[in-house]
Amino acid sequence: MTTIQDIADKLGISKSAVSKALNNAPDISETLQKQVLETAVEMGYTKLRRYKKPVRKLCIIVQRDNIEYEEPHHFAYDIVMGFRQAAEPSGCEVAVVPVDVALQREVSYDAFMLQHDFSGAFLLGFSLGEPWMQDLKTSHTPAALYDNHIIGNPMTTYVGIDNEEGMNLAVRHLKELGHKKIGYISSALGSHIMQVRHRAFFQAMRSHGLKADPSYAGCSYYLSECMEKHLPRFLDMGMTAIICCQDTFASAAITQCRQLGYRVPADISIIGFDDIPMSAYTDPPLTTIRQNRIQLGKSGFDALRMLMNGVPIGTVLLHAELITRGSAGISYPG
Amino acid sequence: MTTIQDIADKLGISKSAVSKALNNAPDISETLQKQVLETAVEMGYTKLRRYKKPVRKLCIIVQRDNIEYEEPHHFAYDIVMGFRQAAEPSGCEVAVVPVDVALQREVSYDAFMLQHDFSGAFLLGFSLGEPWMQDLKTSHTPAALYDNHIIGNPMTTYVGIDNEEGMNLAVRHLKELGHKKIGYISSALGSHIMQVRHRAFFQAMRSHGLKADPSYAGCSYYLSECMEKHLPRFLDMGMTAIICCQDTFASAAITQCRQLGYRVPADISIIGFDDIPMSAYTDPPLTTIRQNRIQLGKSGFDALRMLMNGVPIGTVLLHAELITRGSAGISYPG
Repeated sequence: MTTIQDIADKLGISKSAVSKALNNAPDISETLQKQVLETAVEMGYTKLRRYKKPVRKLCIIVQRDNIEYEEPHHFAYDIVMGFRQAAEPSGCEVAVVPVDVALQREVSYDAFMLQHDFSGAFLLGFSLGEPWMQDLKTSHTPAALYDNHIIGNPMTTYVGIDNEEGMNLAVRHLKELGHKKIGYISSALGSHIMQVRHRAFFQAMRSHGLKADPSYAGCSYYLSECMEKHLPRFLDMGMTAIICCQDTFASAAITQCRQLGYRVPADISIIGFDDIPMSAYTDPPLTTIRQNRIQLGKSGFDALRMLMNGVPIGTVLLHAELITRGSAGISYPG
Repeated sequence: MTTIQDIADKLGISKSAVSKALNNAPDISETLQKQVLETAVEMGYTKLRRYKKPVRKLCIIVQRDNIEYEEPHHFAYDIVMGFRQAAEPSGCEVAVVPVDVALQREVSYDAFMLQHDFSGAFLLGFSLGEPWMQDLKTSHTPAALYDNHIIGNPMTTYVGIDNEEGMNLAVRHLKELGHKKIGYISSALGSHIMQVRHRAFFQAMRSHGLKADPSYAGCSYYLSECMEKHLPRFLDMGMTAIICCQDTFASAAITQCRQLGYRVPADISIIGFDDIPMSAYTDPPLTTIRQNRIQLGKSGFDALRMLMNGVPIGTVLLHAELITRGSAGISYPG
């Protein structure tokens, strides 16, 4: 185990200089502090391991360019709330830290965590290519990641809902309503979650004995392309129901179907994914698969606690939940 | 929420008779007790919800025909230990209950749990077709299941290792050692886990840029068929490495390769799965993917605690771990 003395020896400076640098003392140069932090990270030094203190300071790191959390109608608001609800009664302090790519370029993830004395992090909204996602492959600080999966680092955990189960519930519901020809509309398959949901759609169709060749899915980066190309194609093919990769797409699909002269759900049923707050207020209100965001936040804390207790937990998935509102209805043989 | 009064009303008997039946009082007939239990289960009655007492009595239910746990060299021994290590300091009582199919036919799962006052269960070794696996689809009692996945019941959680990650680590290790032609030997694909590992093999090969057509896997119910049919076929095809679905198969493969005149690992590398206790004592000792059984037991308890706290957790996967011993070595271009 790396000690402050080890770092001092390596850099040829005093133990107290190392200690000052690690604790943000004002009387130390920025250059030296940077050097100490980098060396400490490189040598695998962590305060948590060193002092064996009970764990207290945690952070929720939000990639603010990708996910919003500040107001109740924002997607991540309840995730942050749920984490706090679970963490604070356990005696942990929770800081919410918005970051962007510029900050990630400036300081490495481990150095950031060490500098601010955080024992663990819950990360929201990161894309695969960002600098800290690279750092997390080898980080020594426990981290739970919402909807991101890092292979092979026992100090990281993926937290999310079970998208396969969710897709299964959606297809089962439509089948029970009499639908047989069901299409899937998705944004581009660039993220882990979009890939998982796309694969899950075909799996769910197969396991319910329904036909689904590749033409039954339409994926485009642009929402407009999904609405103007894939949706009309599905209607021409005689689809009676469409599952969308997320609620915003489903909401747009309802509007677009109506503009094309189709009634929802009398002519075509629509199911969304996520149950974002606006989904109760579309017309008709959206039948969708809920990501329970309060529970996702709580699970984030539970997963982090397990990691901090030495349980090398890698994946924690919440049960998905079907919320039936008005946008999916009975299919009458035409 | 169903009350004792509701059950009494439904059966047209007194509240105290219901209470006696639920608490195994001696002065109640077996027939009446059975009737009360069945009605209570049917009406969704649970003691946990009714009294809101802190949770205390848990059980580990072991399907004794499928999995052994009584001695240190048995597979499930450490799983039971790990569960106890996590549960008992939290103030829970843990009973280990071996069951077989006959018992499952005699009494339903929920009735059994209610009768013995268990608030939650960790189930080991159940096959998909057994009676209690059916009951668990609609059970109201929190249950964590080792290596079994029940879709759609928010009161059940699947606990296991991340087999995709494990297969990835195995293939990556072999690739780093210079292997390109890698085969996969598996028992029949009748269980959830065997299906997952089989799919994961092909995924891992693809993601490492290695060729793997269907002929690269050999699956048979009989170990002898794997050794006498698939293994020689792989050797004829010029494979330099073989991954086996479990350590017992890998151990047999080492012996069989030697009998066919091949040296392990000089001519052919073998990797197992599970890291059962005997794997350190094969000749050469087995390189394998560890299922950390103590941590699996701890995760079982953590998952159960989350369920009992109302977090609808569905899947908890531990990180897989590559254990390098002697059975996989460098591939020299022949």
